Amino acid sequence: MSHSTFIIVILNIFSVLILSESLRFGKPMSILRNKKLTSRIPNDYKYRTLYFNQQVDHFGFANNQTFKQRYLLADQFWSRNGGPIFFYTGNEGDIDWFCNNTGYMWDIAPDFKALLVFAEHRYYGESLPFGSDTYKNATFLNYLSSEQALADFAELIRYLKATLPGAQNSPVIAFGGSYGGMLAAWLRIKYPNVVIGSLAASAPIWQFTGLTPCNAFDDTTSATWLDASPTCVDNIHKSYYVIESTSQSEGGYQFITETFGLCSPLTSKYDLQPFMAFLVDMYVNLAMVNYPYPASFLADLPGWPVKVACSYLSEPLDGKDLLRALAKVTNMYFNFTGNTKCVNWTDDGSAGSLGYQGWNYQSCTEMVMPMCSNGSGISYNNPWDFQQVSDNCYETYKVRPRENWISLEYWAKQLKETSNIIFSNGLYDPWSSGGVMESISDTVIAIQIPKGAHHLDLRAKNPLDTPSVIRARIQEGNILRSWLKLTPGL
Amino acid sequence: MSHSTFIIVILNIFSVLILSESLRFGKPMSILRNKKLTSRIPNDYKYRTLYFNQQVDHFGFANNQTFKQRYLLADQFWSRNGGPIFFYTGNEGDIDWFCNNTGYMWDIAPDFKALLVFAEHRYYGESLPFGSDTYKNATFLNYLSSEQALADFAELIRYLKATLPGAQNSPVIAFGGSYGGMLAAWLRIKYPNVVIGSLAASAPIWQFTGLTPCNAFDDTTSATWLDASPTCVDNIHKSYYVIESTSQSEGGYQFITETFGLCSPLTSKYDLQPFMAFLVDMYVNLAMVNYPYPASFLADLPGWPVKVACSYLSEPLDGKDLLRALAKVTNMYFNFTGNTKCVNWTDDGSAGSLGYQGWNYQSCTEMVMPMCSNGSGISYNNPWDFQQVSDNCYETYKVRPRENWISLEYWAKQLKETSNIIFSNGLYDPWSSGGVMESISDTVIAIQIPKGAHHLDLRAKNPLDTPSVIRARIQEGNILRSWLKLTPGL
Repeated sequence: MSHSTFIIVILNIFSVLILSESLRFGKPMSILRNKKLTSRIPNDYKYRTLYFNQQVDHFGFANNQTFKQRYLLADQFWSRNGGPIFFYTGNEGDIDWFCNNTGYMWDIAPDFKALLVFAEHRYYGESLPFGSDTYKNATFLNYLSSEQALADFAELIRYLKATLPGAQNSPVIAFGGSYGGMLAAWLRIKYPNVVIGSLAASAPIWQFTGLTPCNAFDDTTSATWLDASPTCVDNIHKSYYVIESTSQSEGGYQFITETFGLCSPLTSKYDLQPFMAFLVDMYVNLAMVNYPYPASFLADLPGWPVKVACSYLSEPLDGKDLLRALAKVTNMYFNFTGNTKCVNWTDDGSAGSLGYQGWNYQSCTEMVMPMCSNGSGISYNNPWDFQQVSDNCYETYKVRPRENWISLEYWAKQLKETSNIIFSNGLYDPWSSGGVMESISDTVIAIQIPKGAHHLDLRAKNPLDTPSVIRARIQEGNILRSWLKLTPGL
Repeated sequence: MSHSTFIIVILNIFSVLILSESLRFGKPMSILRNKKLTSRIPNDYKYRTLYFNQQVDHFGFANNQTFKQRYLLADQFWSRNGGPIFFYTGNEGDIDWFCNNTGYMWDIAPDFKALLVFAEHRYYGESLPFGSDTYKNATFLNYLSSEQALADFAELIRYLKATLPGAQNSPVIAFGGSYGGMLAAWLRIKYPNVVIGSLAASAPIWQFTGLTPCNAFDDTTSATWLDASPTCVDNIHKSYYVIESTSQSEGGYQFITETFGLCSPLTSKYDLQPFMAFLVDMYVNLAMVNYPYPASFLADLPGWPVKVACSYLSEPLDGKDLLRALAKVTNMYFNFTGNTKCVNWTDDGSAGSLGYQGWNYQSCTEMVMPMCSNGSGISYNNPWDFQQVSDNCYETYKVRPRENWISLEYWAKQLKETSNIIFSNGLYDPWSSGGVMESISDTVIAIQIPKGAHHLDLRAKNPLDTPSVIRARIQEGNILRSWLKLTPGL
């Protein structure tokens, strides 16, 4: 089958397919989306768990209900004589998880004599505006938005500064990674009265309509894999055709099912595109977590997992040999420990989680991030279809995304109007495609981290850290010191 | 009766009184609150009336309804080759009125080759989110807020720049007076991506809890009257005691009723405080409109009306003589043309207007502005009682004000974080007490206008303009030019 014929087939599949989640609502953003990756807490950080009453609706007064926002507080390093407050703007998940996976804040807190606060994002973890009913109907989800979350953070900061003895004169710096990094940046943009600056790690604040070409995410993912092995990418590129052609051969679906050890068998052409989307998600996720060491929260993966994946695809392959080699990659990703019975390609185990449900809703309202591929790199041909996304959202939540809202609300590329934000991005991270990669001004500073994955700089220091991330952290620390009018350190 | 006894009486009255509107919800803000003042349109400005579809709720997605926002557009001066857009951020009333009473924009538009746009504030004029039902129940009022209004303005500006041929590269400057001035400043603060700067005239953005002492407004009003005549203020100060004592004399209520020509008679001690509040409102309003000329929209008043009022109170008076002289002031204010049959002190005629209803709701939610008097100046003793205001609001609208919200949302005094805002204030204007009276930075500039009343600088030029307002307008024009990178002019 020729390339052009194949594209037509794929497009036909598109028109009737049962969309995979990533196609329905956009790419999963946080590593946390994969439930498996959230189970381990690898350290012994000491903190207290506290709660603060927040308005359910900051922007209207008819609903005067409140809910308890969870936040974590560690004051063992803090100097009440002017020590700063490092405030993590929680993203789409349990705040415990972000607290335990943002080692950078813990690593530098003693030196800065800082108070650490990790604030949970409403609708996640325990911070549920309507308790156990929160996700039971779409109207309860109406207050799940970045604006409400920022107002929560601002109110909490004001409360802490007003009530913690010694905090009144403590400057506050926001920290965040991924969507949390977007929130950290936006908190500085919209509420510079509460934070003097922000470290926004791997924050794709420009991954929105009109700000970044929809193929940039795919291109960056491809580049990360190309850096490991061009032959590997050729094989992956070829694999979509091979899956297609194999499926049309006698016993093809069964071969694929058995080779990949799939829990649910492939049975018809309608399964092909979702299966391919599942593979693309895996390539994206591996690029996101392409850390130099076996990540402590990702014990199922080796260091430099993209390189390991490509080790199975380092020679030009075709046909069933290619699929067998590819199956080693999925096995590494899903079954590194050998304890998994089969590969659950139709459900990564996160479907029931709040992080999953909440982020889908956010992707259907504000966080609609156009992504596409022309099929020339690591993904198959995959156009962006806003109307399709919008229709899916309406079907599920009775809401439609407003694709231009975020760029209006958060100033798009007019960031010379703000100050004191660090935008750090690892160049291996697909999300860096929507990030701020060049400094905007003397105080809105981009830091690129070669060979860095998704907010690597926010993770705890590690003996296997690359020189690039060590340099980035030193630079970040010195910028934080300059905001705090401290002398530069190491 | 001694002074101290009187205060106790007044305080006793307070505990049982039927509160006047200004006590229930805070002082009326815009001149527009007096319906009588809105009836005349004195010029022949030419503009088109247009409408733009806005989301009813910018901050939630469950309600996807839209409504038509009215805006006025005058392009006869505009150079489509980069001429700026002067955008009036409408306040609490018909946008036609603000358009016709903001002559400064019309006066300078030809010189700047500017496009003029006047955008109506939601819930006022014709811009009613729920049509004729908008004010029928409290839940429909839920989307009446400054944040929603700013988002309307931002969306409208984006739309105009995207759709008007030639507008794409037109820099936008926001203009506004009074609450409209607050919105102009806040638009620059929260959306610097849509406006390059703002002229905020008589914008009391600090008239909120914790930012300005509650007696400042009363002190400024007193100072304006003192500038006309200290004896006048002594008489007004004394009048509260005289009203109190006269009311307790035989035929006292009837004397007051007849002397002032009141439509509704005073009949009991419960009427006293509302009647005094009515007088205080008059003194405030006269200070606000203390313009050097018979204002074209205020044809019922002479130039320098405070001075005229004080001409009746220029000698030390007491007893019935004082009340008869005071009645001349109320007659001047309410019946300058001689066509009014009686003084309607229980209803200024605005009670049914949207401006009145809408602003009361806003005063019960975000715009809660603490005001008080210790009785040493032009007002009687009048403490600020947030709980009472809150209870009244709850009774009327089933909402309670959040007294610290505005200062969090709009950065309180941290305005060094923004840029390109002019805060102009007339020193005669009581609202200047809550305004920005000193420059914050090189680009956040305060302009004081001695002998200036409420946003005098925004009014059309007049042969009787004071040198101070002429100077202010020249300074404003040159700052606007500097933002637009034009050479200074006259």
